[in-house]
Amino acid sequence: MRKYLNPKKKDWDELLKRPMNRTSELKDKVSGVLEDIRINGEVAVRKYSKMFDRSAPAEIAVSCDEIEESVKLISEDLKNAINLAAKNIRKFHETQRQTYTKTETVKGVVCWQKAVPIQKVGLYIPGGTAPLFSTVLMLGIPAKIAGCKKIILCTPPDSEGNINPAILFAAKVAGITDIFKVGGAQAIGAMAYGAGKIPRINKIFGPGNQYVMTAKQLISLYDVAVDMPAGPSEVAVMADKDSDPEFIASDLLSQAEHGPDSQVLLVTNDESIVDKTELEIEKQLSMLSRKDIAAKSLSHSVAIVLDSEEKMADIINEYAPEHLIISMNDYQKMSEKIVNAGSVFLGKYSPESAGDYASGTNHTLPTNGWAHAYSGINLDSFIKKITFQEISEEGIKNLGPVIETMAEAEHLGAHKNAVTIRLNKIKKQ
Amino acid sequence: MRKYLNPKKKDWDELLKRPMNRTSELKDKVSGVLEDIRINGEVAVRKYSKMFDRSAPAEIAVSCDEIEESVKLISEDLKNAINLAAKNIRKFHETQRQTYTKTETVKGVVCWQKAVPIQKVGLYIPGGTAPLFSTVLMLGIPAKIAGCKKIILCTPPDSEGNINPAILFAAKVAGITDIFKVGGAQAIGAMAYGAGKIPRINKIFGPGNQYVMTAKQLISLYDVAVDMPAGPSEVAVMADKDSDPEFIASDLLSQAEHGPDSQVLLVTNDESIVDKTELEIEKQLSMLSRKDIAAKSLSHSVAIVLDSEEKMADIINEYAPEHLIISMNDYQKMSEKIVNAGSVFLGKYSPESAGDYASGTNHTLPTNGWAHAYSGINLDSFIKKITFQEISEEGIKNLGPVIETMAEAEHLGAHKNAVTIRLNKIKKQ
Repeated sequence: MRKYLNPKKKDWDELLKRPMNRTSELKDKVSGVLEDIRINGEVAVRKYSKMFDRSAPAEIAVSCDEIEESVKLISEDLKNAINLAAKNIRKFHETQRQTYTKTETVKGVVCWQKAVPIQKVGLYIPGGTAPLFSTVLMLGIPAKIAGCKKIILCTPPDSEGNINPAILFAAKVAGITDIFKVGGAQAIGAMAYGAGKIPRINKIFGPGNQYVMTAKQLISLYDVAVDMPAGPSEVAVMADKDSDPEFIASDLLSQAEHGPDSQVLLVTNDESIVDKTELEIEKQLSMLSRKDIAAKSLSHSVAIVLDSEEKMADIINEYAPEHLIISMNDYQKMSEKIVNAGSVFLGKYSPESAGDYASGTNHTLPTNGWAHAYSGINLDSFIKKITFQEISEEGIKNLGPVIETMAEAEHLGAHKNAVTIRLNKIKKQ
Repeated sequence: MRKYLNPKKKDWDELLKRPMNRTSELKDKVSGVLEDIRINGEVAVRKYSKMFDRSAPAEIAVSCDEIEESVKLISEDLKNAINLAAKNIRKFHETQRQTYTKTETVKGVVCWQKAVPIQKVGLYIPGGTAPLFSTVLMLGIPAKIAGCKKIILCTPPDSEGNINPAILFAAKVAGITDIFKVGGAQAIGAMAYGAGKIPRINKIFGPGNQYVMTAKQLISLYDVAVDMPAGPSEVAVMADKDSDPEFIASDLLSQAEHGPDSQVLLVTNDESIVDKTELEIEKQLSMLSRKDIAAKSLSHSVAIVLDSEEKMADIINEYAPEHLIISMNDYQKMSEKIVNAGSVFLGKYSPESAGDYASGTNHTLPTNGWAHAYSGINLDSFIKKITFQEISEEGIKNLGPVIETMAEAEHLGAHKNAVTIRLNKIKKQ
């Protein structure tokens, strides 16, 4: 870790800089794939599955039998864990339902919002060695609670055309049965434009490699909504003299093992905790299976020592971490100062991995500074709020003249006329 | 209007097709402007203001005096109207505040959401002949209610370097004082990267011409969040035999006058209403100041006659109009079937222009089919929800084994270790 002692505020920006790839090389390639799928549908999807994933099963829809079979293939222990995690995620996301009331803004003018589920959503789950079944729960459960009518899941099969049973089991627990064996940019294209059995959907969720992310970016401009912009995963830990270096090290490492581009940040008002944490990191690192990845990520990580809690909060708010662990004595007080973060973990017994899997909060969170403006995935992500208004004869009489005046001042005569015509007819009655 | 009698469902897609521009000509041009601003800041902004807007005042920040002066320049009538509209918009958006409770998902594991305002937001208001002061209210008022710390407004000045007094007055009413005389793509660039007095902000809101929209699109990929994707404005009217053709015509025209690319759709189960409406349109059109624009927009508009209310709802939900006026006898029943729309106007005395200006609902709404997945602007647009979790010693003992099992199954050893290390320390105590 690079260590900075009381860096000046004007240097924070430079010091917190994330690696940023603005090149568009990938864009042309992915753009071609998407355009091909838009025009040629299923045939194009199969072509790219063969080309990129070397696996394009004749039947891409997962059968009920395959889903049932998955139940037998995973341990009781894992099944129980997935079930409990699902229960917590469901419980927390269910609290996110809101109530809406009608408001009479002016006598005879009643306005309200109504939450309506996004009708058709698509979830993307990457393949690879580590099956991200936890993400199936994090996306599928709130989609179900929101009441989305159609929820499909795309994930690449292995070379034998199978999907990891833990992914199928998690889907079953979440209540998702429309599962397709397609991955990569071609899966995003298929969901954006429809292709064979894969229906065109309204919003796409989920992580993926750079091809998937570029495809999501491109379709979000013209065709289909996406959950949020992408970036490498991050954690920031805030520590003071009472923090436990062993815990801090384990939290930093759990982020660092995600990938060599993972971002890890330690902010403290006690310099000695940095040194102690570094010693602990070395100790723990050697025992990790993904130590090479973690070491690479740690090599560009940063520890910052600041002389006040105020500055600690300021620098975190400037960075806007995806995950923030406040491992300080008075974590409550510090947490009240935090305005930019994805998900915040309070106290020494709240590791990030609790939220990654099972506490109930969502793990799909804004990275790359997007926590300045984005929420993590929550029930809102699967609904839209439609506004309604009902205006009575009395209402338009009360409000009409105001509308006429404003429409005229904006030079929109027909807007005015839509009111005048109604007011005149009322007068004539 | 093109009229279709009971078109088959398979043809709806074609019939509802919106004009779509996928070309990227503009992109390269705008991309160059943004990159220049990112690197050269204020100097570049001034350069493009001179080049494109022919107006780059030496002092771009609007002074308090200018704002106060605006009060004297507009009529009492308009001031009163703006004040009343602001009151209604404030009242309705204030009802959108939500409450959040803490949930104990497992004994010792407490999770909650907290709504935090997006700290710095930028509002863009286009210039031109029609001063869009109503949009100042629609964006500024919810930003204030949300509690955004910094709210800036950019709008292009006229050739004398002045801003329309109605815009300044509306900003004053909304409580916005950081106003800058900059327009076009360069205003978007200045807000995205910071330029001189214009601070870098976290999310950009507001309409604009194709340069502004392209700039918003481009910055949304890497730099700053934006409110929603753009498209031409639209209205759909649902009518039955009891509807008033005079009112329908006035509503269709009020949409059509926005621009030649405005989308206008009439859906009914009574063919005669189409013919009566067309007669009324001709009558009213001749009296409108913007009749040429409206006529052009109407030339590509569509009337669809369907033989059931079910099909009427289906076709509207497939189209997902920005504005929907249900001018039918039993509008309540029909409104319950609507799942895709931006804002819905119920009954014969609820013209779209009420929501455009003064009823209290927001007029910044999803166009171009984005109502399938997006809400219109509302209080949510100016906040993020951060999740928090606080896990006690008991909590991690309860939840820890589940996390360990799941992390192991995803091959993430360090994620597991962050829990194991804590459980071991608790055991040793």
